[in-house]
Amino acid sequence: MDILATIATTILEQMQKPTLSFLIAGMMLAALGSRFEVPEPVYKFIVIVLLLKVGMNAGISIRDADLMSLLVPGIGACLVGIGIVLIGSRTLARLKGVSEIDGLATAGLFGAVSASTLAAGMAILDDEGVAYEGFIGALYPFMDIAALVTAITMAKLSAARKTATNVTINAGGTMTAGGPRRAPAEDTNMIRDILVETLRSPAISALLAGLALGILARPETVYASFYEPLFRGLLSILMLIMGMEAWARFAELRKVAHAYILYGITAPILHGLLGFGVGMIAHELTGFSAGGVILLAVMAASSSDISGPPTIRAALPEANSSAYVGTSTGLGTPIAILSIPLFIALAEVFIRL
Amino acid sequence: MDILATIATTILEQMQKPTLSFLIAGMMLAALGSRFEVPEPVYKFIVIVLLLKVGMNAGISIRDADLMSLLVPGIGACLVGIGIVLIGSRTLARLKGVSEIDGLATAGLFGAVSASTLAAGMAILDDEGVAYEGFIGALYPFMDIAALVTAITMAKLSAARKTATNVTINAGGTMTAGGPRRAPAEDTNMIRDILVETLRSPAISALLAGLALGILARPETVYASFYEPLFRGLLSILMLIMGMEAWARFAELRKVAHAYILYGITAPILHGLLGFGVGMIAHELTGFSAGGVILLAVMAASSSDISGPPTIRAALPEANSSAYVGTSTGLGTPIAILSIPLFIALAEVFIRL
Amino acid sequence: MDILATIATTILEQMQKPTLSFLIAGMMLAALGSRFEVPEPVYKFIVIVLLLKVGMNAGISIRDADLMSLLVPGIGACLVGIGIVLIGSRTLARLKGVSEIDGLATAGLFGAVSASTLAAGMAILDDEGVAYEGFIGALYPFMDIAALVTAITMAKLSAARKTATNVTINAGGTMTAGGPRRAPAEDTNMIRDILVETLRSPAISALLAGLALGILARPETVYASFYEPLFRGLLSILMLIMGMEAWARFAELRKVAHAYILYGITAPILHGLLGFGVGMIAHELTGFSAGGVILLAVMAASSSDISGPPTIRAALPEANSSAYVGTSTGLGTPIAILSIPLFIALAEVFIRL
Repeated sequence: MDILATIATTILEQMQKPTLSFLIAGMMLAALGSRFEVPEPVYKFIVIVLLLKVGMNAGISIRDADLMSLLVPGIGACLVGIGIVLIGSRTLARLKGVSEIDGLATAGLFGAVSASTLAAGMAILDDEGVAYEGFIGALYPFMDIAALVTAITMAKLSAARKTATNVTINAGGTMTAGGPRRAPAEDTNMIRDILVETLRSPAISALLAGLALGILARPETVYASFYEPLFRGLLSILMLIMGMEAWARFAELRKVAHAYILYGITAPILHGLLGFGVGMIAHELTGFSAGGVILLAVMAASSSDISGPPTIRAALPEANSSAYVGTSTGLGTPIAILSIPLFIALAEVFIRL
Repeated sequence: MDILATIATTILEQMQKPTLSFLIAGMMLAALGSRFEVPEPVYKFIVIVLLLKVGMNAGISIRDADLMSLLVPGIGACLVGIGIVLIGSRTLARLKGVSEIDGLATAGLFGAVSASTLAAGMAILDDEGVAYEGFIGALYPFMDIAALVTAITMAKLSAARKTATNVTINAGGTMTAGGPRRAPAEDTNMIRDILVETLRSPAISALLAGLALGILARPETVYASFYEPLFRGLLSILMLIMGMEAWARFAELRKVAHAYILYGITAPILHGLLGFGVGMIAHELTGFSAGGVILLAVMAASSSDISGPPTIRAALPEANSSAYVGTSTGLGTPIAILSIPLFIALAEVFIRL
Repeated sequence: MDILATIATTILEQMQKPTLSFLIAGMMLAALGSRFEVPEPVYKFIVIVLLLKVGMNAGISIRDADLMSLLVPGIGACLVGIGIVLIGSRTLARLKGVSEIDGLATAGLFGAVSASTLAAGMAILDDEGVAYEGFIGALYPFMDIAALVTAITMAKLSAARKTATNVTINAGGTMTAGGPRRAPAEDTNMIRDILVETLRSPAISALLAGLALGILARPETVYASFYEPLFRGLLSILMLIMGMEAWARFAELRKVAHAYILYGITAPILHGLLGFGVGMIAHELTGFSAGGVILLAVMAASSSDISGPPTIRAALPEANSSAYVGTSTGLGTPIAILSIPLFIALAEVFIRL
């Protein structure tokens, strides 16, 4: 009871704070049919500033970080990303009305990370005065890339397997040129292609550019005079956009199986708890901070909204984008952002902030 | 003589201040044929930030405002909006070369409010150290919606009346199905539709979102760290845009009747004086501040440049947009902004700041 | 040896500072095939803010500047602009694979000034605490316009001369109507047209608007609260864009003669040294500051990336834009920006900062 009361109070308090209240305001605007909109280039600019900020901050921190204390959460983030896709492949991908490839595409997005959700988590922790490792932004690509590569690889292998079966049935076992049986080298090539594709995606490469600048250059002055001060304000506008987008995308879900709605509602919280658990292990092993545990949970709960969808679309053109984008942007993202207070409350209970 | 000297001095001083000087610079750029332009998405972003700022500021103030001191200027703003349209319907709409519908569309825009002009007024008062009620931004929708709904309703009723007459003449008095005689329920529906349409327009809904955030949430931190500090700078760029736009639109007026030019020049000042008078009544009744009286005059003087034109276009597609947009954006807006010092000077004379 | 050591140390230090490190990060992103991009409207907005900032700053300084101390560097800037084009017409325009008109177009861009390079130079000097005349931004149009007018006029005269010869050969000496022999009045008209066209270009007119605001109005408050603080941050994003753009444009150079590559690499440094020399003369004559000498060198080294290319394209549609844009944006701009530390080091050696 005490735990539930703490959680309820934290959530209610956070609803009035800038981050969540702008998200809710965005959903309200869309729900009431407002024609308000933020132009696409402004949205992109905001995301660029946030990603450079998160990357630079991580890079500056990594410079004098103890490599061990970085490695454990890094491996943890990677495992969480893979774990979320594996869970999705055994649950969502087997539900009624969900094709295996659509299920894997959706699970891949849920395993990947949303920059806006992570930024929202950081802003909320800053507001609350909860400290976290500066390098936390560097965990983003670990989880993001691990999830996308796992999901796309599994979907391609499954498609190859099906083609193989079809070929056997239809063509009496004769192998066609460039056919389904792939040599191991081909698989390695495929994984390398996905990896390169993901690293070149706008979001990941902006984050890595920020990271490289933080590690190799000395961007502290411009970080302190521009990126850090603008961060909160731009995030508030981004939350408005995410809220409106979520409402608009949610409508698309009517066209697809109910299984996606169930997954979109429950997965962020379950994935967040998985991330929280892995974070707790890192907390015990290397003294990973409470704020770090919360942000790992937030990353796990989040689903990719910027770089993920185009990566999936490019790699798996046959997957139904209404299903995976609708589920992640329409349900996954708002629920992940709204559940940030839950993870803070859990940390209050289990780690004592 | 003394009053005129005060007014002249105030106006000249203000011409050098950022707000007005950027407006004039914009007009100069356009007049000299510069190819300088601010991209549309940047313009929209600036307007969004200004409207959220004005709305939030009003919302935060309303939280602990005395309801009575808000109600009187609110009713006043509403009456000013309706009054401007009625004046327009007896003057502009009856002038030579002006159709009734075009006259009403133009009067509707002049009754509605320009966010940039209001923001300019606020910035100038802040510069001068003249205090005004924080909730003043909340008066915007009262005047804006009242004017647009009145103008569109009058135009539609007039069109219906004409159709009725035509039908009588042409078809010998036989009523056609769904014909001109409207039941009162239809009129109510029409007004509700205009109201909903206006509330959903980008500008009004951004302002209302800011208002709701200010009243229901606690956006003070992000307001103070982002919206307030960026306000002045973004306004200066907006003034450049308004100046260029005014010059460009002014050219369109050559194609329409001279009556529009006469109206565009005199109406902002007369409407401003009307708003000033209503503000003075509120000043006497509830102690409405001098700054508040000035801003009510500024709102009355201003003509809608963001949400008004598309609302009018959607509701009255048969009206001539060159006439109403040219008159309001080409003449109404720059004259309203340039007459802000006039209202300050009047307040100095009549209220003593 | 000592000089070389100073130069090497300064360059290496600067590589880690925000300005140059963001430029290099942009080149890296493009080199690694990242799909990261900054939307065009954001790029334009950044350039507008920088140009207004530079212009206003210059305008505010000119207000109480001694006219003489302004005139000498002004004439110097003008001569450097013309000189660079003349040098280009004797070198690049006569190299193998380079047509005279393409060579002149390229030399015109190299004589013109890059706002981003100048802004980068100012930011680096601010970082280093090296003082420079506030009016330095006002030298920009002198050099820029002088170079563009010279290049376009020379190209047009050369084209007219060629047509004259062709006509003689082909048509046996009969003069066609409106033919090649131009009256002096026509030349004056042509130069006036180029001048007006250049003054109306977005970059020059934004700079002149800022200059006029600085001289005639009192924009100090908005300058200090918006333009100055945002300058560094927006510049860092602009450097990312310039870096990516440089890499992308560099690829275009493969299609044109090797002479362009040679010119693109050596010209910025040679032109910078020319500017440095002229600055030194002003330093001796009127006490022009060391920072001013450096910035004059930076302007001379830079090649126009915003207003120049469209001006050249409009005036000389027959010139090959791959050649001149590729050489200036792909090589000229990054090399000019990267050679800023060189000019600082030279000033350290020759003027003692």
